Amino acid sequence: MSDHVDVPEDHPRHDSLLTRHRIEDGVDRGITSRQGLIAQGRGEAYDYLLGERTIPSADEAERAAAAQLLLADHPVLSVNGNVAALVPEEMVELAEVVGAELEVNLFNRTEERVAAIAEYLHEHGAGEVKGLRADGRIPGLSHERAKVDSDGIGDADVVLVPLEDGDRAEALAATGKVEIVIDLNPLSRSAQSAAIPVVDNIVRAVPNITRHARELADAPRDELEAIVADFDREAALAAAERAIRTGGDGEE
Amino acid sequence: MSDHVDVPEDHPRHDSLLTRHRIEDGVDRGITSRQGLIAQGRGEAYDYLLGERTIPSADEAERAAAAQLLLADHPVLSVNGNVAALVPEEMVELAEVVGAELEVNLFNRTEERVAAIAEYLHEHGAGEVKGLRADGRIPGLSHERAKVDSDGIGDADVVLVPLEDGDRAEALAATGKVEIVIDLNPLSRSAQSAAIPVVDNIVRAVPNITRHARELADAPRDELEAIVADFDREAALAAAERAIRTGGDGEE
Repeated sequence: MSDHVDVPEDHPRHDSLLTRHRIEDGVDRGITSRQGLIAQGRGEAYDYLLGERTIPSADEAERAAAAQLLLADHPVLSVNGNVAALVPEEMVELAEVVGAELEVNLFNRTEERVAAIAEYLHEHGAGEVKGLRADGRIPGLSHERAKVDSDGIGDADVVLVPLEDGDRAEALAATGKVEIVIDLNPLSRSAQSAAIPVVDNIVRAVPNITRHARELADAPRDELEAIVADFDREAALAAAERAIRTGGDGEE
Repeated sequence: MSDHVDVPEDHPRHDSLLTRHRIEDGVDRGITSRQGLIAQGRGEAYDYLLGERTIPSADEAERAAAAQLLLADHPVLSVNGNVAALVPEEMVELAEVVGAELEVNLFNRTEERVAAIAEYLHEHGAGEVKGLRADGRIPGLSHERAKVDSDGIGDADVVLVPLEDGDRAEALAATGKVEIVIDLNPLSRSAQSAAIPVVDNIVRAVPNITRHARELADAPRDELEAIVADFDREAALAAAERAIRTGGDGEE
């Protein structure tokens, strides 16, 4: 991915600054909203307290997410403005590795932003991108917030929703779909409502889910099911909160 | 202050949402930058962990800040885009109560933003606003980052710098001026370099400094000096970090 700003590789805040510049580029491209910039700042603060690394419980969640996506009949990866700005190639790659569809789904939906994000994903190698039809609805949300593609997220059994609003994450979980969330705040309603909450920076989480999926690609179904069954979401959320509060790695 | 968005008074996140909308209005007015939106998000996360309240050590810091401003020969309050967007009236009021000057001082300086912020302060009752001449320099910073008014911050003995970048806060402290910082991250270089670090949300901190200054307006000089001397910055920073990490009020 090209970056418009030179950040020296040895700068102590290299990854954090690069991430911030990707989000700002997203504004120029019309894919990141003002709310997206504020959300990026919240994420920066939680990641700073987390030590800007993937803690062991997050790695386990990422492995469980990979197994769950491989087990799915119809997995869909939801993409909003910040997700597209931060990890466009990485989302396309994960979709390929687990056989998932990509769907643009926005909290502040405008047709222009949906089209700009779909185009940006195409530029990064995506085939079909859903989210433009928006002919389905998630129950329990106001009209604009509820829109999904009926043959995309509407028909999915497993959905990855990174950096999602709490109301929408709760409403989606209430449909009975298996929800995987990526969110740096373990106390957020998004993380709390997910079957598999991944408390990690999306720029680390998505490539790591892909790595696990590659390793598990030929694993038998019962091994994948065991990985999902063994994942303890309550323990993972508690470990993440401990890591943020204490600065440690969250292990007891 | 008028707000363009109706947030019900009884909404549990009322203050936080109102603050966010003020920042977004700031973008429309050309006074808040993209970096300002991201910084707002970081602040939201720290304030959330802090319980969105003024902890006892912050109240003590705010009282010491009031005393220090009243003791100053030439106090200056620095105003950037987020400060102007969030607390324009409150900064004008504090300047009046402690007899300080207001100076617009920006990390990402453009003449347009300086003028827009000065105009916004005038709309909220400010008399003279400094920062447009920019004929002085803070040593140790690159050219654009270093600009101040020579008869404003350049000549001040006490400077209040809310929501300031770490490099700039360190460089300003190195000039020997007494620096009061408002910053929600007690680990930030801005907070760490301040003589009086106020770890609190600016929308609570500025009115509370003003309230203390009103109470102390007729206090004898030695009482003010004792308040400043008794303030323990290391203890205040440690209490704020404990409050963020543990969710308590930071008192031992």
